[in-house]
Amino acid sequence: MEIKIVKKVLEAHEKLADEIRDLLASRGVYAFNLIGAPGAGKTLLLESTFDAAAPELRPGVIEGDIATTADAERLKRFDVPVVQINTGPFGGDCHLAPNLIRAALDELPLDEVGAVFIENVGNLVCPAEFYVGENEKVVVISVAEGEDKPLKYPLAFQEAKAAVITKIDLLPHLDVGVDGLRENVAAVNPKLATFPLSAKTGEGVEAWVDYVKGKIAG
Amino acid sequence: MEIKIVKKVLEAHEKLADEIRDLLASRGVYAFNLIGAPGAGKTLLLESTFDAAAPELRPGVIEGDIATTADAERLKRFDVPVVQINTGPFGGDCHLAPNLIRAALDELPLDEVGAVFIENVGNLVCPAEFYVGENEKVVVISVAEGEDKPLKYPLAFQEAKAAVITKIDLLPHLDVGVDGLRENVAAVNPKLATFPLSAKTGEGVEAWVDYVKGKIAG
Repeated sequence: MEIKIVKKVLEAHEKLADEIRDLLASRGVYAFNLIGAPGAGKTLLLESTFDAAAPELRPGVIEGDIATTADAERLKRFDVPVVQINTGPFGGDCHLAPNLIRAALDELPLDEVGAVFIENVGNLVCPAEFYVGENEKVVVISVAEGEDKPLKYPLAFQEAKAAVITKIDLLPHLDVGVDGLRENVAAVNPKLATFPLSAKTGEGVEAWVDYVKGKIAG
Repeated sequence: MEIKIVKKVLEAHEKLADEIRDLLASRGVYAFNLIGAPGAGKTLLLESTFDAAAPELRPGVIEGDIATTADAERLKRFDVPVVQINTGPFGGDCHLAPNLIRAALDELPLDEVGAVFIENVGNLVCPAEFYVGENEKVVVISVAEGEDKPLKYPLAFQEAKAAVITKIDLLPHLDVGVDGLRENVAAVNPKLATFPLSAKTGEGVEAWVDYVKGKIAG
């Protein structure tokens, strides 16, 4: 018979997110918060990013999932520290909150890390609503999801600084175009940088990795 | 400076969901609650279902979206009553709640309807947690999302009676198999009926439509 006071929880979360931002800044660590639907290709994006430039980026990873450690296990082949957060398994939280991020950061060797990649729970809706101390949100969307998603799920595209458009190798088999997707992205957030790529073929990965490098260097 | 009492809201929702269930039962209407990630193919599933059997099913539709009436517009070509619910546009609710369903039902001609299809907000997480008076939840997952999704988002697969596996025409271009997906579905919920299909080629649609007909007749 629990009665929650929602406002106090939210205030505490915002305060903690600010503390996380300050902690990361003091260590010179830049944090990306990756947001996308289940199966958008967030983990594969990390894999191709690390294949291209792990030594230079010196990444640390916080994997958010309702259940399983599958994503963290996929990253084991890299010499990269990974912390897995499970919010479930059943009826688990639909997004990562600052208290979980704060606990995960204690498990990362921040002195050896240049960038923290937070892979949020697969959900294009709720994670967009929560600031967890990141420097920027990155929205990840697969071409297989269709062109209309920026219009139908606008908040994630409004809150993000970059949009990665994944699985472009599937374009010949879909009634979807990158131009159409970009138009819909621009309708919601004209400032959003877009990176169409295929982690499978490698097309477009370099431009994305250059963007990441530029953010860390800055 | 709003302080919400969560428990009372949840109790009111459950009571209202029961009333919706009773209302639908009294009119002989069967309700499906479709749950899936953005771009899983929920609207296209409705289109192919209605192409196959709209006159027999006498469907009514409640379209749930954070923003836009795009999905409702796609269904205009059918002689089918459609009510669009928008929960947003920005920071909108991540799932449909019974109060929204109750209001939408007032706009549907229930005397002419055999089955109500509720297309929930595109989100594999939150809609699974809420009973809105439906007879059954149907989880919709695209093969492009990958084989591991039942394990990573178990609640939707636990709560559903049927899983529709969409976009199987893409299988030759993906490292994904229906057998692998079915194994993972069975690991979470061995009783879940699975319907692999392609709305694009029509493969598998008949088995799904037969399932729907069987539920309505029962």
